[in-house]
Amino acid sequence: MIIVTRPGITEAELDHIRERVEALGMRTHVSRGEQRTIVGCIGDEERLQEVALLRMPGVERVMPVTKPYKLVSREFSVERSVVRAGDGPSALFGGRELAVIAGPCSVEGAEMLRETAWAVRRAGAGLLRGGAFKPRTSPYAFQGLGLEALRLLAEVRAETGLPVVTEVMDTRQVELVAEYADVLQVGARNMQNFPLLSEVGRVQRPVLLKRGLSATIKELLMAAEYIMVQGNRDVILCERGIRTYETATRNTLDVAAIPVLKAETHLPVIVDPSHAGGRSELVAPLAFAAVAAGADGLIVEVHPDPERALSDGDQSLSPDGFAELMRRLAPFAEAAGRTLRAPALEAA
Amino acid sequence: MIIVTRPGITEAELDHIRERVEALGMRTHVSRGEQRTIVGCIGDEERLQEVALLRMPGVERVMPVTKPYKLVSREFSVERSVVRAGDGPSALFGGRELAVIAGPCSVEGAEMLRETAWAVRRAGAGLLRGGAFKPRTSPYAFQGLGLEALRLLAEVRAETGLPVVTEVMDTRQVELVAEYADVLQVGARNMQNFPLLSEVGRVQRPVLLKRGLSATIKELLMAAEYIMVQGNRDVILCERGIRTYETATRNTLDVAAIPVLKAETHLPVIVDPSHAGGRSELVAPLAFAAVAAGADGLIVEVHPDPERALSDGDQSLSPDGFAELMRRLAPFAEAAGRTLRAPALEAA
Amino acid sequence: MIIVTRPGITEAELDHIRERVEALGMRTHVSRGEQRTIVGCIGDEERLQEVALLRMPGVERVMPVTKPYKLVSREFSVERSVVRAGDGPSALFGGRELAVIAGPCSVEGAEMLRETAWAVRRAGAGLLRGGAFKPRTSPYAFQGLGLEALRLLAEVRAETGLPVVTEVMDTRQVELVAEYADVLQVGARNMQNFPLLSEVGRVQRPVLLKRGLSATIKELLMAAEYIMVQGNRDVILCERGIRTYETATRNTLDVAAIPVLKAETHLPVIVDPSHAGGRSELVAPLAFAAVAAGADGLIVEVHPDPERALSDGDQSLSPDGFAELMRRLAPFAEAAGRTLRAPALEAA
Amino acid sequence: MIIVTRPGITEAELDHIRERVEALGMRTHVSRGEQRTIVGCIGDEERLQEVALLRMPGVERVMPVTKPYKLVSREFSVERSVVRAGDGPSALFGGRELAVIAGPCSVEGAEMLRETAWAVRRAGAGLLRGGAFKPRTSPYAFQGLGLEALRLLAEVRAETGLPVVTEVMDTRQVELVAEYADVLQVGARNMQNFPLLSEVGRVQRPVLLKRGLSATIKELLMAAEYIMVQGNRDVILCERGIRTYETATRNTLDVAAIPVLKAETHLPVIVDPSHAGGRSELVAPLAFAAVAAGADGLIVEVHPDPERALSDGDQSLSPDGFAELMRRLAPFAEAAGRTLRAPALEAA
Repeated sequence: MIIVTRPGITEAELDHIRERVEALGMRTHVSRGEQRTIVGCIGDEERLQEVALLRMPGVERVMPVTKPYKLVSREFSVERSVVRAGDGPSALFGGRELAVIAGPCSVEGAEMLRETAWAVRRAGAGLLRGGAFKPRTSPYAFQGLGLEALRLLAEVRAETGLPVVTEVMDTRQVELVAEYADVLQVGARNMQNFPLLSEVGRVQRPVLLKRGLSATIKELLMAAEYIMVQGNRDVILCERGIRTYETATRNTLDVAAIPVLKAETHLPVIVDPSHAGGRSELVAPLAFAAVAAGADGLIVEVHPDPERALSDGDQSLSPDGFAELMRRLAPFAEAAGRTLRAPALEAA
Repeated sequence: MIIVTRPGITEAELDHIRERVEALGMRTHVSRGEQRTIVGCIGDEERLQEVALLRMPGVERVMPVTKPYKLVSREFSVERSVVRAGDGPSALFGGRELAVIAGPCSVEGAEMLRETAWAVRRAGAGLLRGGAFKPRTSPYAFQGLGLEALRLLAEVRAETGLPVVTEVMDTRQVELVAEYADVLQVGARNMQNFPLLSEVGRVQRPVLLKRGLSATIKELLMAAEYIMVQGNRDVILCERGIRTYETATRNTLDVAAIPVLKAETHLPVIVDPSHAGGRSELVAPLAFAAVAAGADGLIVEVHPDPERALSDGDQSLSPDGFAELMRRLAPFAEAAGRTLRAPALEAA
Repeated sequence: MIIVTRPGITEAELDHIRERVEALGMRTHVSRGEQRTIVGCIGDEERLQEVALLRMPGVERVMPVTKPYKLVSREFSVERSVVRAGDGPSALFGGRELAVIAGPCSVEGAEMLRETAWAVRRAGAGLLRGGAFKPRTSPYAFQGLGLEALRLLAEVRAETGLPVVTEVMDTRQVELVAEYADVLQVGARNMQNFPLLSEVGRVQRPVLLKRGLSATIKELLMAAEYIMVQGNRDVILCERGIRTYETATRNTLDVAAIPVLKAETHLPVIVDPSHAGGRSELVAPLAFAAVAAGADGLIVEVHPDPERALSDGDQSLSPDGFAELMRRLAPFAEAAGRTLRAPALEAA
Repeated sequence: MIIVTRPGITEAELDHIRERVEALGMRTHVSRGEQRTIVGCIGDEERLQEVALLRMPGVERVMPVTKPYKLVSREFSVERSVVRAGDGPSALFGGRELAVIAGPCSVEGAEMLRETAWAVRRAGAGLLRGGAFKPRTSPYAFQGLGLEALRLLAEVRAETGLPVVTEVMDTRQVELVAEYADVLQVGARNMQNFPLLSEVGRVQRPVLLKRGLSATIKELLMAAEYIMVQGNRDVILCERGIRTYETATRNTLDVAAIPVLKAETHLPVIVDPSHAGGRSELVAPLAFAAVAAGADGLIVEVHPDPERALSDGDQSLSPDGFAELMRRLAPFAEAAGRTLRAPALEAA
């Protein structure tokens, strides 16, 4: 930690600062520049959280030197993490093959889920998504089928072999959802729901952690740290667009977050082009961009009849649209040194 | 709902749109302009949530006409709501007297809580705040004393007569916190934690709902609607600064949100100048601005020794600082046609 | 400047960094912490602009210690600047009396300008605003009357005694506008039009510098520095709302910018509540908030018939609305320790 | 234009609205819904700019139906524009071959410019960039070599055959810069410098228009309209990152702006990955993402010795780094159905 002091700081104020810092077991070093005197604090910076440095007389600014995250950091694990999802047939996040999750925003019924699952499997998806509990801005909107949806997801997994990704929103549901799902999704609105993060950190299921609507990259990493500190090391990060002043798209895909995250953490990073753009015609260009920038996978909304979807129809692809996306994605994956799963040939 | 169509839309496409909308029990009206043909949809707009309008061929844009919130709306209740907090001695939100909540960020112990409570009471505060469960960005930071803190808050309420405001973060804690607290605070990071909103909507305690870090005013109102739809009508809204590109302050106080909210909703609106600015020297100017713009109250962090606070020390006032704030606030309150509680004269 | 190095930096890399910094005439000091080694650079930080520090092997981050602005800084001038506008009858910015500028967005003709000028003078305004050259988002919108408007402004000043504030957008117009106007306004869209800043820095007229739509407080101060470095010390800063994700208001008034600026600079700071809110009903609450937070003045749009204004009618007050604003503002000004000019009693 | 009225609007208020709109030569249509009555205005929406609709009693909101830009719109020109830069040997923007502009941020001297030009030509760049007049945040930073730099650019063009792109910042310089440059760049900070836009609209040189730091896509298109309305149809749009709350990167590349712009306008769209990321290691992933999302070209900063660059060294590539970028870009270009210029084989 570097403490920048105000011009005209007194020696007594400087001594007070040093005493407070050294009382926490750190060493200090004072450097007097032309315009500012600074106090370098050497030792474990976290201890300084217990002092309100800005309240000490003579302090102008405080600049942290070390990073607040540990377990997620590349300094903690030089090797990249590969997260395996699914007990039997499985999918990998962070391997050479891109992890492609596809499926409906919400599970609306058995028929549409089954149809979508087979279709995305045929097109090369490796996992099935489907919402059972839905976070909706309006209390009057469709809130998901709940337990019934979880059962349908498990059924369709048994048929298609696709591991299942679904969202959990409530600490009370974690155990239940973990019983049915292969990957627990923590949605953007819950990225800083700390009790939920701790809870999913205690189960034996990979967690797909979506970046909050206005979360910094650092906050996303701290949220992953919350999960890992509980013992669950299988965290997958997901960039899904951030909130900016631009209204032409639902969110602004922060494509640079991909290489920045890959430099900071050993965890796999995927992208959600459906929520980022908010319109079906933007899914393909954003998916291509994500893979070109180094993403380890994608999560894409697919619905058998987008026009009639109970949620997120505007941004959902039809099964045909998804198959075309995968075909066009192939050369970009290859250019990025990645592979796509070969489309399955079985009939539904 | 107004549907703006693309230039060159065919009659068949137009018919399809009308049929889909009318199948939901709405009427349509087509208006052909020089550049665009538009379809007005008359009836209950909510039904249109079941159609992905943008996916229909020929649709360019969709513009809602009605507002998505009902119970929070001034159209629902012309009279302003006054929310009463506390069973015995009580405080009002939305009355002529400003509701001033003050106290430490976290309850760190009996001594400091008691000292702070008496000090803020003497200075004219009407309610006591204090965190028992703390949402912290880092899993390594102080997380609050939990149940012990709740007990201390109840003890100090019994002594000082100040109703107690404290945060609830987990659906599993709502009942417990409601047992001890007079007002349940839902923090900024949980503004769209929908299960939590529903849960606090089912208890008989006023809810202080803080605006999310990047929540729009409309989303804040929808979050309040989530609470009210469960039966709890005692919701207090709190502007606490939003996230912008500016880094000179912790957040950007959206002071215009106060008059905008007062025009949209009958619910009381208070302001948190401590979190908005993030530095103690900004608390006073932001508090004055909030009251001048029409706020119904304030929530202010006060700590007996801010330099040693375990959380948010940088933005906490000392008891003396708070007393001075209240003294200087008085003429602004008067200018705004509001009153402050007369400072209590009893000794601690 | 503090250079934070990467973990595992070699001694050779460290030597290279020190050599490069010392070659610029600075001293260096190396401090080895538990996780990071840092290099403190002591001397004139500006010289380091000539080195791309982040490109040196082993460098992770760079943190400036000193502030990039000088002439605008409170360290440069401990006393607050008071800026005088107008040759004969004049107005002060930064004195005890609030400087209130009022008038139409655009000068649309002699009649409306004269009527507005007398009306705002009667209500206590100290200066007249009026646009001659208008920056409009659309090339098809009304662009201002140009030279004719300048002449009308000068005429009305002669009649009413109100000094005149008008915008200059083009380096080629600076001399011309300075001939007619008492204060040159540099608009938000031109805050980083550096040739224009330099040009207005060379004339003998106060400059009203508006904060850019997404300018940081630091960038606003650097823009003022551009003007002052040319010799013109009469700069008035203006907060007018920034661009955020919130769409309920035209911009988001950053009310905290007022105390932050007052702490950083000796220059006067005024606020534009008309552009900040974008709607006439928000002008009053935002004006009250601005004065409560410590603003030295206001700039307000007033039009004799807002409904028919050729620009910014939505946010303009009528003459009566402005008179009422001033009446209601008085107690807030008093609470802030400021005065308002007594309404003039002369008839038009 | 759709006018949404307030609940409880009177018939007299409704009549007043209709009369005002119809007085402008438009037709109106009133539609009475369950909650709101709306007035559809049919005709040329631009005329409504002369009325402050929100000021009319009973008006709640106003929603434009048509788009404010014309010449830039795909409705104006269904065929995509191809912009040719350079008199003799030339480069195309919007053709099958990607347009790659490369060169130093600032022209610092003859040697470094020549060396860079030959190096980027060998690697396959089609145009040379180099700043003569530099917009710098600080008045104390290097401001460019001005006319001398223009002469050097022309010299190096004669030697290498690379058309030259350079920035113009001042209306007074447009003629001069146009004499030397093949493409006039209007920088992000000048995107709404309307006199400058008009001036470059009057010369016979293509204009590279960069998106402002916080400009919406609509505002970028309106800025292009300003240029085109003066007669210059050769406008190239450039996405270069926008300002958001995220500080991990210099700006946030809005990669979705590429497909959104391609859908809205016939003009070519290129991307500046250097300014978007602000760090050399981000240039490659952002360049790949841009091409994958459909960009027509790139503008990249290259410096013979980035560590010693007088500006933007942190984000500049070395000549070797640029050659590697181009090698790795090739398969992404191919995947996007585009070509890269074959690297030139001549020695310097």
